[in-house]
Amino acid sequence: MISDHAVVRSEQIGEGTTIREFVVVEAGASIGRDCVIHPHVVIGSGVSIGDRVEIFPGTVVGKPPNGANAVARPIEYDRVVSIGDDCSLGPNAVVFYGVKIGRGCLIGDGASIREECTVGDQCLISRYVTVNYNTSIGDRTKIMDLTHITGNMTIGNDVFISVLVATTNDNALGARGYEEGQIIGPTIGDGAMIGSGAHLQPGVVIGNGAVVGSGSVVTRDVEARKVVMGVPARVVRDV
Amino acid sequence: MISDHAVVRSEQIGEGTTIREFVVVEAGASIGRDCVIHPHVVIGSGVSIGDRVEIFPGTVVGKPPNGANAVARPIEYDRVVSIGDDCSLGPNAVVFYGVKIGRGCLIGDGASIREECTVGDQCLISRYVTVNYNTSIGDRTKIMDLTHITGNMTIGNDVFISVLVATTNDNALGARGYEEGQIIGPTIGDGAMIGSGAHLQPGVVIGNGAVVGSGSVVTRDVEARKVVMGVPARVVRDV
Amino acid sequence: MISDHAVVRSEQIGEGTTIREFVVVEAGASIGRDCVIHPHVVIGSGVSIGDRVEIFPGTVVGKPPNGANAVARPIEYDRVVSIGDDCSLGPNAVVFYGVKIGRGCLIGDGASIREECTVGDQCLISRYVTVNYNTSIGDRTKIMDLTHITGNMTIGNDVFISVLVATTNDNALGARGYEEGQIIGPTIGDGAMIGSGAHLQPGVVIGNGAVVGSGSVVTRDVEARKVVMGVPARVVRDV
Repeated sequence: MISDHAVVRSEQIGEGTTIREFVVVEAGASIGRDCVIHPHVVIGSGVSIGDRVEIFPGTVVGKPPNGANAVARPIEYDRVVSIGDDCSLGPNAVVFYGVKIGRGCLIGDGASIREECTVGDQCLISRYVTVNYNTSIGDRTKIMDLTHITGNMTIGNDVFISVLVATTNDNALGARGYEEGQIIGPTIGDGAMIGSGAHLQPGVVIGNGAVVGSGSVVTRDVEARKVVMGVPARVVRDV
Repeated sequence: MISDHAVVRSEQIGEGTTIREFVVVEAGASIGRDCVIHPHVVIGSGVSIGDRVEIFPGTVVGKPPNGANAVARPIEYDRVVSIGDDCSLGPNAVVFYGVKIGRGCLIGDGASIREECTVGDQCLISRYVTVNYNTSIGDRTKIMDLTHITGNMTIGNDVFISVLVATTNDNALGARGYEEGQIIGPTIGDGAMIGSGAHLQPGVVIGNGAVVGSGSVVTRDVEARKVVMGVPARVVRDV
Repeated sequence: MISDHAVVRSEQIGEGTTIREFVVVEAGASIGRDCVIHPHVVIGSGVSIGDRVEIFPGTVVGKPPNGANAVARPIEYDRVVSIGDDCSLGPNAVVFYGVKIGRGCLIGDGASIREECTVGDQCLISRYVTVNYNTSIGDRTKIMDLTHITGNMTIGNDVFISVLVATTNDNALGARGYEEGQIIGPTIGDGAMIGSGAHLQPGVVIGNGAVVGSGSVVTRDVEARKVVMGVPARVVRDV
């Protein structure tokens, strides 16, 4: 059922799908079966959405990156987005072009995922999490509210990242502009857990199953299955 | 005055209320007198809004929780929302079903309040604050920008919580799933003050009138009218 | 080109400008040439937008401050907003009345800038950054995701502020209400760099070119070109 108040320019809308008032779906987008697209959603050209996906009000799927002369990194992206079956997005989430999201993911209110990122299956990207460009997130990983995931970062499967965690990728704090190869985010191994308000410095590697305590500042690599804490973080015990 | 460009399915709209362009009000919602509902607001069925309430663009009142196979906790909720007289909400705020907000509250841009929460009178829930399920907030309490309030948490009257404060409710960081009774947020007593960037660990009790310093990590209970600071936080003096 | 589904009450729309579906532009707003105003944007009366500006979905330009009986500070503001040429805003950004933004700025998803603030040229105010009232930001300054900039604060040119940084302006944590002259934010000098998750206390002065380490809590002034770290922050070396 497509509302008379929606503007739908695509004919690739699956059976049983509801499109509500004031939605805009561009030509070249495709939406699967039994989806619900709530009011005020915008779905761009080149976006492909699976079956049984629910998108809450105000979410934008398919935003071009736009530097407006103010960002250092040259921006390339594919004008496609893929959202797997059984996902829930929004309200007010933003998915940039060049993003691929697996099946059964929950993308929370206002979560914003930038270009060239991949998110696996059954992930939770919670409220107002911001994910920067070219980052890869595995399956069943949970990232809680108000956490920032930096660019050029790799996150494994079954990872838990708590609220208000900061990750960075540039020791020069922007002073040298964007030099490819110098801008490297952290790597987080499978099953690792990152406590609330922790800070992971550029390029650190968190081993599989390691635990980072709340409020820690991680300046060096953490071995698998170690627990680290403090500012700067030191090993306190095995898991 | 109801805009010709709005879709209003309820007849319970009070005298003197303005409903602007591209608003959606579902059947079974009720809105009091002298309210202003700005463009692109969505008000769900079962939502009850008092008098002289102003709701800014893009705010959603009455969102169902939706786990999409990615959250651990079984979700129950009442399909009602109550917003008291003289409140101001948004823009882009999100109020889930099962929430009750008192009179004279200011809910800031993008603040998001999940199911089964109650907020007292004259509270400020500022920009991008996220409040999790089943949390109770007293009267005249202020929670500043970008702070996360966890689930199963209790906050008293006249509390001040500064910006970028983290609270958590699960020592296992999600590793054990949702076990009822094991997932307990902090308790904050009347008149307590929590500094910017503090972290309150699961289950800690902050006594009445206590003060937590900026950047502290609170791992143990804090007695009434004590000042604590540091990582981990220790008592430094009386208030 | 103005969509038939938009509501445009102003005649001051420049040549080559596109206004998309479900946009609201109030009488008395002016928009320059070759702009793109995406769906669901609201532009208030008294707003003046330059040439080649792109505004993404759900952004609100021209929001009145609204205390709803819950904020301490008396609110005064001019019912104008000025956005310079070549800016990009949103999605879901919020620009309050009384704000002036220079040329070539990028205002990220959900960034919210309150009344009586000025932002220079070529700035980046990234995703979900919240800027409080009466704050001044210089040219070419970058403020990264999920950072809070407090009220009555001054930020110089070429400053870099990383993610999840907290700044505050009130040592009494709201306990004394709003006393003019007692509520003073930090001052950040030209070329200073503030690491992720740092906290700057009320009234501290960060000298030109100084560097604040990640996770530091800055309680005292920092001299120009010094590097400080720790909780509380101490000088560790020269830049």
